[in-house]
Amino acid sequence: MYLYSERIYTPQGFKTGYIEVEDGKIKNILEDVDGEFIDYKDYIIVPGFIDVHIHGWATGSFWYEGTKESIENMSKELVKIGVTSFLPTSGTDSVETINNHLLQGRKAIENYSPEKGADILGFHLEGPFINKEFKGMQREEYCLNPSIKILEEFFESGGKENIKLITLAPELDGSLEFIKYVNREGIQISIGHSAAEFEEIKELKDYGLGGFTHTFSGMRGFHHRRLGVAGAAMYFDDMYAEFAKQTGMTVKPEAFAIMYKIKGPEGIFLTSDCTGLAHVKEPFHHYIRECTFVPDGDYLKLEYDNGKVDRIYKYDYDMVKDLELSYLKSVQNVVKNVDASIGDIVKMTAENPAKYIDVYDKKGSIEKGKDADLLVIDGLWNLQDVYVKGVKQEI
Amino acid sequence: MYLYSERIYTPQGFKTGYIEVEDGKIKNILEDVDGEFIDYKDYIIVPGFIDVHIHGWATGSFWYEGTKESIENMSKELVKIGVTSFLPTSGTDSVETINNHLLQGRKAIENYSPEKGADILGFHLEGPFINKEFKGMQREEYCLNPSIKILEEFFESGGKENIKLITLAPELDGSLEFIKYVNREGIQISIGHSAAEFEEIKELKDYGLGGFTHTFSGMRGFHHRRLGVAGAAMYFDDMYAEFAKQTGMTVKPEAFAIMYKIKGPEGIFLTSDCTGLAHVKEPFHHYIRECTFVPDGDYLKLEYDNGKVDRIYKYDYDMVKDLELSYLKSVQNVVKNVDASIGDIVKMTAENPAKYIDVYDKKGSIEKGKDADLLVIDGLWNLQDVYVKGVKQEI
Repeated sequence: MYLYSERIYTPQGFKTGYIEVEDGKIKNILEDVDGEFIDYKDYIIVPGFIDVHIHGWATGSFWYEGTKESIENMSKELVKIGVTSFLPTSGTDSVETINNHLLQGRKAIENYSPEKGADILGFHLEGPFINKEFKGMQREEYCLNPSIKILEEFFESGGKENIKLITLAPELDGSLEFIKYVNREGIQISIGHSAAEFEEIKELKDYGLGGFTHTFSGMRGFHHRRLGVAGAAMYFDDMYAEFAKQTGMTVKPEAFAIMYKIKGPEGIFLTSDCTGLAHVKEPFHHYIRECTFVPDGDYLKLEYDNGKVDRIYKYDYDMVKDLELSYLKSVQNVVKNVDASIGDIVKMTAENPAKYIDVYDKKGSIEKGKDADLLVIDGLWNLQDVYVKGVKQEI
Repeated sequence: MYLYSERIYTPQGFKTGYIEVEDGKIKNILEDVDGEFIDYKDYIIVPGFIDVHIHGWATGSFWYEGTKESIENMSKELVKIGVTSFLPTSGTDSVETINNHLLQGRKAIENYSPEKGADILGFHLEGPFINKEFKGMQREEYCLNPSIKILEEFFESGGKENIKLITLAPELDGSLEFIKYVNREGIQISIGHSAAEFEEIKELKDYGLGGFTHTFSGMRGFHHRRLGVAGAAMYFDDMYAEFAKQTGMTVKPEAFAIMYKIKGPEGIFLTSDCTGLAHVKEPFHHYIRECTFVPDGDYLKLEYDNGKVDRIYKYDYDMVKDLELSYLKSVQNVVKNVDASIGDIVKMTAENPAKYIDVYDKKGSIEKGKDADLLVIDGLWNLQDVYVKGVKQEI
């Protein structure tokens, strides 16, 4: 199969040519071909988005449901918003719950094929080793000090090779040993839900702290005598700042723009941190939406603060897809806020996250030998077609 | 008079040549001269520091003493630390006190000649139009809402043409009219001692807000949903961030470094904000020095928190010069903290402050027609010689 475009974004910049896809991989980018090709002359081809922080999306929630099916539902729907691979992300639940979810999730990974949708790259563990003081939407009673023993249980349930990223509060007791251990295993660590001081991060970072989970959220503000986690994110050039979906509310566009000035697209990656809100297990008040989400069997009741009530079917994509801002819409917000080129966005959505979780050998750019995870877009980041491992997806 | 160097820093970069000085001005930079010249072959020549925020220094304090002599003492000693021109800066005192000080200060300006030391460019009014909530070392009972009537009194006492800079909290009632008025008069305004919201600054800035007084101090920390004054300083490229002396304590070096990454040397200028601590009028506890300064006639008693007591003569430069970090030592700290070139430092110490208070036509760079305010330094910012309007100073 050949895909033609005059604007194929590669690490060497734009190329005109034919992407040759074979066995799910990019075999080559050719200047000319004989025979049939799919003509994307009026479009841009970029690598698919890689979302390394996503608990759930639309009809599935790994966090709330924790089933094989929940991940498969995510996989199926994520391609519709440009995400071609992802790390299903656990929350700070009981160790038993996390173990069960990982066991289930592992089955989804083992049964994955590209016809099913976005590629499942492994897991991101957001906690349980986080600080109660900045728990955000995580549950306080399950926040624990870092424990290698518990991590080994997670390895057992989820498969060691599948644990790709851990969000941790490095000020907690036992962090240093934990970080060293995790780093030896080749697993990436982000600082998040943390009250760490700048000086603590400075001391620990080179043992294996790679970046910051949903930067600015789940941490103190920056102060010039107490720089904290936010100051460390601004200061250390060699650490990545993850920004969760840009709704314009959780992190003001100008706050994102400030970090963009500091780090540039080279030091930032975008995630959605979506949870699959249709699948909450308990009534949950969403302070930004001014609405309580109430589980109701296969339905979700939306009880708005103003008295209005809605009821929607949890497994109908069109009914649930707007409960949270999608990865794609977040990208479209970013390009309204900062002057980011196509290549800048590719860095933040594909190259950087792939490098961060060490899958850049097969994902994150359009290069010979890599998986054919491709987005066909117009100049405003509207999706035309999506390919995962060379398989054209239903979007 | 001719000064020779192989490293004369000009807006076009380094030049080798002979600075021709005549009638206090730079007449030319020549490639060759006949006759005698002063040989600074092994040194660098840069424009003198311009300190636009300085209440007092060493043997004189415009803020605490408010006399003609206090400014003349400052003038005399400032050249020893590289400052060749300055704005004596009032504090937030009673309107009557400020008026008296301005009347006195005006005499110093009228009687100035370069044999007396650093050039007096006019006044900086730090308040009284500031916010009590962020008064810092200013006195709460004298914080007022902006008043054009009071400002006109200051014009009367200090001479309208001498008011060059006003520090203001723009969230106070009456700010918009005040800012418009001040802007029409060609006077610069800095935001300082302020609780303003980011959105308020966004709305008012284009009416005439040029920058930020001692950035990060006298304001809330940065938060991603409430960016405030600190966030505005980080966000708006067209506003200058003033940083007062870099002691490493009031603003952590890494906090300065973060702003340096954001704005670069183009958007920052350095001041000392020194007060002339030897001349306090009431016992004053210095929380960073852990010491109480107690006035004692022509002497100053230093009562340290640890019980030690010192007594020093207020008009002996060598005894008082280390009570506060000097402008020069602050510059030396900056070049240990960020990788600033000679030209970068010249921007932050001379070019930018001159542009900020609109005296760049005669100060702030080594160019034909400008005042011969020159520092002869080695590569580590140690002073060899200082010239003010062509007059070699005793340093």
